Amino acid sequence: MMIKVVAQNNVKADKTDEFIVLAKKLVQDTRKYDAGCIRYELLQDVKNPQLLTILEEWDDQESLNKHLSAQHFKDAMASFASYMEKPGEINLYKTLA
Amino acid sequence: MMIKVVAQNNVKADKTDEFIVLAKKLVQDTRKYDAGCIRYELLQDVKNPQLLTILEEWDDQESLNKHLSAQHFKDAMASFASYMEKPGEINLYKTLA
Repeated sequence: MMIKVVAQNNVKADKTDEFIVLAKKLVQDTRKYDAGCIRYELLQDVKNPQLLTILEEWDDQESLNKHLSAQHFKDAMASFASYMEKPGEINLYKTLA
Repeated sequence: MMIKVVAQNNVKADKTDEFIVLAKKLVQDTRKYDAGCIRYELLQDVKNPQLLTILEEWDDQESLNKHLSAQHFKDAMASFASYMEKPGEINLYKTLA
C-alpha cells in the first residue's frame, strides 16, 4: 500500500537557514538513492517560516523503513536534533480519494 | 506561486464514515470544477482513523481563493462543522525543494 508522510519540523528562528541547507541535501540524497520514493519535498509554511515540512510518498511501508535506516537519513536527523524549537509531528497516511 | 495545503481534520469517532462520504464528494467536485487545482486528495492517518487530512496543490493563491468561495466547498464546510472533535490545522506551503 502506498504511504504518504507529512513530517512537520518546528525549527528555531536562527537555525532555519542551516536547516534548509541540510534538508535540501536530504531531499537530493533520498530522491537519488532510496528505492520506492515517489515524492520527497521540502515545504515552508507561508505564514510561519519556522514550520518546515517534508512531504513524502512511498511505494510501501518497506521502502519507507529502508529510507529511515539509510545513512543519509540518520545523519540528517542527528544534525536536525539541535535545530528544533519544539517536537515536530509526523503522520503516515493512506489515500482514500 | 504554486501553493500546497495540508488541512488536518480531527473528526468524531462516530462521524468518520459520514465525513468520508462527504469529503469524497468534495474531492470529486473540486477536481471537476475548480480551475488551477493540481492535486486534491483525501488521506486518513494509518494509526488514528479520526485524523482525516486533505492534501492540496494549487496553481496559485487566486485559484485557492476561488475554491474557498465555491458553493461545493462552502456546503461541505457547513456539513463538516458538526463532525469535528476539535479544531483542525490548516497550513499553506511554498515548495523549497
